[in-house]
Amino acid sequence: MIGGGFAGLWATRALAGSPVRVTLLDRRNHHLFQPLLYQVATAGLSAPDIAAPLRHILRRQRNVEVRLGEATGIDLPARRVQLADGDTLHYDHLVVASGATHAYFGRDDWAAHAPGLKTLDDALAIRRRLLLAFERAEATDDPDERAAWLSFAVVGGGPTGVELAGTLAEIARHTLRSEFRRIDPAQARVRLVEAGPRVLASFPESLSVRARVQLERLGVEVLTGQPVEAIDARGFRMGGVDVPARTVLWAAGVAASPLGALLDAPRDRAGRVRVAADLSVPGHPEVFVAGDLAAVEQDGRPVPGVAPAAKQMGAHVARVIRARLAGQAAPAFRYRDFGNLATIGRMAAVVDLHGWKLSGVLAWWFWLAAHVFFLIGFRNRLIVLINWAWAYWSYQRHARIILESPGDTDGADGEAH
Amino acid sequence: MIGGGFAGLWATRALAGSPVRVTLLDRRNHHLFQPLLYQVATAGLSAPDIAAPLRHILRRQRNVEVRLGEATGIDLPARRVQLADGDTLHYDHLVVASGATHAYFGRDDWAAHAPGLKTLDDALAIRRRLLLAFERAEATDDPDERAAWLSFAVVGGGPTGVELAGTLAEIARHTLRSEFRRIDPAQARVRLVEAGPRVLASFPESLSVRARVQLERLGVEVLTGQPVEAIDARGFRMGGVDVPARTVLWAAGVAASPLGALLDAPRDRAGRVRVAADLSVPGHPEVFVAGDLAAVEQDGRPVPGVAPAAKQMGAHVARVIRARLAGQAAPAFRYRDFGNLATIGRMAAVVDLHGWKLSGVLAWWFWLAAHVFFLIGFRNRLIVLINWAWAYWSYQRHARIILESPGDTDGADGEAH
Repeated sequence: MIGGGFAGLWATRALAGSPVRVTLLDRRNHHLFQPLLYQVATAGLSAPDIAAPLRHILRRQRNVEVRLGEATGIDLPARRVQLADGDTLHYDHLVVASGATHAYFGRDDWAAHAPGLKTLDDALAIRRRLLLAFERAEATDDPDERAAWLSFAVVGGGPTGVELAGTLAEIARHTLRSEFRRIDPAQARVRLVEAGPRVLASFPESLSVRARVQLERLGVEVLTGQPVEAIDARGFRMGGVDVPARTVLWAAGVAASPLGALLDAPRDRAGRVRVAADLSVPGHPEVFVAGDLAAVEQDGRPVPGVAPAAKQMGAHVARVIRARLAGQAAPAFRYRDFGNLATIGRMAAVVDLHGWKLSGVLAWWFWLAAHVFFLIGFRNRLIVLINWAWAYWSYQRHARIILESPGDTDGADGEAH
Repeated sequence: MIGGGFAGLWATRALAGSPVRVTLLDRRNHHLFQPLLYQVATAGLSAPDIAAPLRHILRRQRNVEVRLGEATGIDLPARRVQLADGDTLHYDHLVVASGATHAYFGRDDWAAHAPGLKTLDDALAIRRRLLLAFERAEATDDPDERAAWLSFAVVGGGPTGVELAGTLAEIARHTLRSEFRRIDPAQARVRLVEAGPRVLASFPESLSVRARVQLERLGVEVLTGQPVEAIDARGFRMGGVDVPARTVLWAAGVAASPLGALLDAPRDRAGRVRVAADLSVPGHPEVFVAGDLAAVEQDGRPVPGVAPAAKQMGAHVARVIRARLAGQAAPAFRYRDFGNLATIGRMAAVVDLHGWKLSGVLAWWFWLAAHVFFLIGFRNRLIVLINWAWAYWSYQRHARIILESPGDTDGADGEAH
C-alpha cells in the first residue's frame, strides 16, 4: 500500500480482519485532511489540527505495519518496491495511491514564485509568505513597493483557489485591522485569476455566478477568461499586461504522482493511470491504483479527484482483494456521487447535491458540518470547532506564527530569520 | 525596544499611555511563551498554542509600532540601530532585550548533533528528530543500530533538561505503546546527563533528590557528576566511555545575545551585560538592558534568567523612562522572587516557594495552574487546557506531525521528506 491519503488509508482499514498482512508506506508520518489544508495556509488552524499520525490511526489494526519511507522504484515482474533508504518491500498485491502534486504546465520556473498547496509544509510556506508580505509593506517607505507587497494573486479558480482568495480577503479586511501603523491592510488587492470562463467550473453555472458574487462581496477581484502568461518575483502577466504582485499562489494545475509512470500502463494527459473496471492495472491484476492517481471514467465523465472518490476507490480495492482471496468475482468500481461543496470565506459557500443547490450562509454551515464530521479523531474535531467558533466571534486567526521555511528560494526574506 | 520576549513586551506594555513612541523590533513576528516550549518539542502542543503575534498583542496600544527585522549594529553616539534589511532606527531611549541563545562552551561542532531549544523552529526540529528516531528504529533490522536509535540523551540537568527527559520517557512508555510492530518503544533508554552533582541545582537539595526520584520513576536514567566529553552523530562520550545515542538534545548552556557585545559595556562570562542599578548601561543612561541579556546581582546572588525576572526588569525600565521624562529620580531595580517551579513529567513536578516545598502530583497541579494562568490570550489558555486534559486522559500527544526541517544538517533524514 503506497500512500496514506484517503485512498490508501481507506483501503488499509477495509482490509482489517482479512487474512492479509498490509504494509502501509508513506513519505510522511501522518494522514492529512486535505480539504482543510487552506485553513493552515491562512493561519486559521495549526498543522496538527488537520493531521494524525498514521501509526496512531492504525494502532489497533494488528495486520498493518506502517513504514515511513519513499518508494523510488517498482519492479513489476519481481513484485518488489524499492525504497529510497535502500530497503525493498515484496508484495502479493500492490495498491499505488500516491495521489497528485501541483503542476505548472511545463513552467517549472514559476514554482519558486507561485507556491502550490498540497502538503502541510506547503501550507506553512504559504502562511509565511502571506504574513511576511504585510510586514514588508509596513516596513517600506516606497509607495510602489508597498502596493506590490499589498497585491496578492491566486492563480486557478477551482475550489482551492476560491478558498484561498476568499480567506485572504477576509484576513486583509478583518483579521489584521488596526494592527499596522503605516499601512491599512484593507487596501490590499486580492485577485483570483482563472483561465476558463468561470470559477468553480465543476459546479453548475448558477453556482459559479453565486460564488463570484460572494467572492466580490468579500473583496476579491475575479478575473476570468484569460490565462496567466508569466510569473516572476515581481508579479504576473495577463493579456500582455504586467500586474505587480509580490505574492502569487498557485491553485491551477495538478499532475499525478510520478509513481504512475512506473506501472507500465496507459496514462492520461495529467499522468493518471487508466485502470481497469476493478481499478487494477491492465495486464497486472495484482497491482491497483486508487485515488487521485487513477483515471476512471463513469458514464462518459471522469470521476473527480475529491476525497469521497478516493475513499470509495480505496474501499473498492480492498473489496476486490478480499473477493479474490475468497475465489469470488469482484464487481466493477462505481463512484457514488454525494454532491459537491466548496467554501468561499466567512459564511460563504456553495453546495450542489444532485440539483439541490445552496449558496451563502446556509451552504457554509452545511460545508462546516460536513468537514468537521469527516475529520479524523475526536480531539481534532473538538479543537477545530473551537478554533472556528473563536475565529468567527473574534475575526482572529490564531496561527499567525511565522516559522522558518525550508523551501523558500526567492531570497526575499533573509532578514526575517 | 529590541526583542519581543518577556522583558521587551512587558516594558512596551508598561509604556502605554506615556508620552513616548515605542518601536518594538523583533526577528520574529510572535511573542513566545518559552516555559511551554518543551511541550511543542515533545508534540504535546502546536506551535501557535504558545505564541501570539506581537502586532496582535499590541494592536490597541496606539503609541507602539511593531517592526519585524533584525538589529545588526548599534551606533551609541548617533543613537541609531542598524537593521539587516538596510533600514536605520533612531532612538532617544534604547532597551535591548534580545535574550539568550544556547551555547556549546566553545564546542560549536556539537550543535549539529545536539540541538538546543530556544525558538519554535528549534522545538519543531527536535520534535522531528524524536519522532524520526522511533521510525528509524522500526525500519532497521540491525540490532545495534536499532538500540542506538532507541537511545536518547539530554545534556543538562536544569529545568529544560528535566522537562525534556521526563516527557521523552513518557512518550516512549505510554504514548507510542502498541503503535509499532517490530520495536517496543518502552525499551527506549532515556539518559539525563548533568556535569554537576545534582539536577535542578537552582532548587534546594531536598527537591533535587525528589526530582531525581520522580525522573527515575518515569524511566529516566540520571547520570550526574561528570561532564560530556564529546558528541557526534553516533552518540556521546562521558568518563572516557562512548555511549551510542542517535538522539542527543542540548539543555546545558546559554549565552547572551550577541547584541550585548555592541554596547561598549562590561560583560560577565556568559556575555551578559553588567548593568547599573536602574538597568541602564554604565556611561549610557539612555540605553537599558533587560531580561536574560542583563547581568544583575542582588544580595550577592545573580538574578535568575527566568520569565518573572524578565517581566519585572521590563516593567522597571519603563518606570525609569517615565520617571526621567517627569524629571524624577528612578528607584533601583529589585527582583521580587515569588519562588521556583519545575515540571518533570506526568503528574510530577517540584515547587519551592520561599521554603514552602512541594513535589509530586500537587506540585504538578500548581505548576500547571501557574503556567496556564500566565499564558497570553484567552484562546491559548483554553486550547492548552483542553490539550492537556486530552493528553492526560488518553496518554496521547496530538502534535506528532513530522514537518520538514530547514536546519537539519546530519543528512540522516533524506528519505523522510
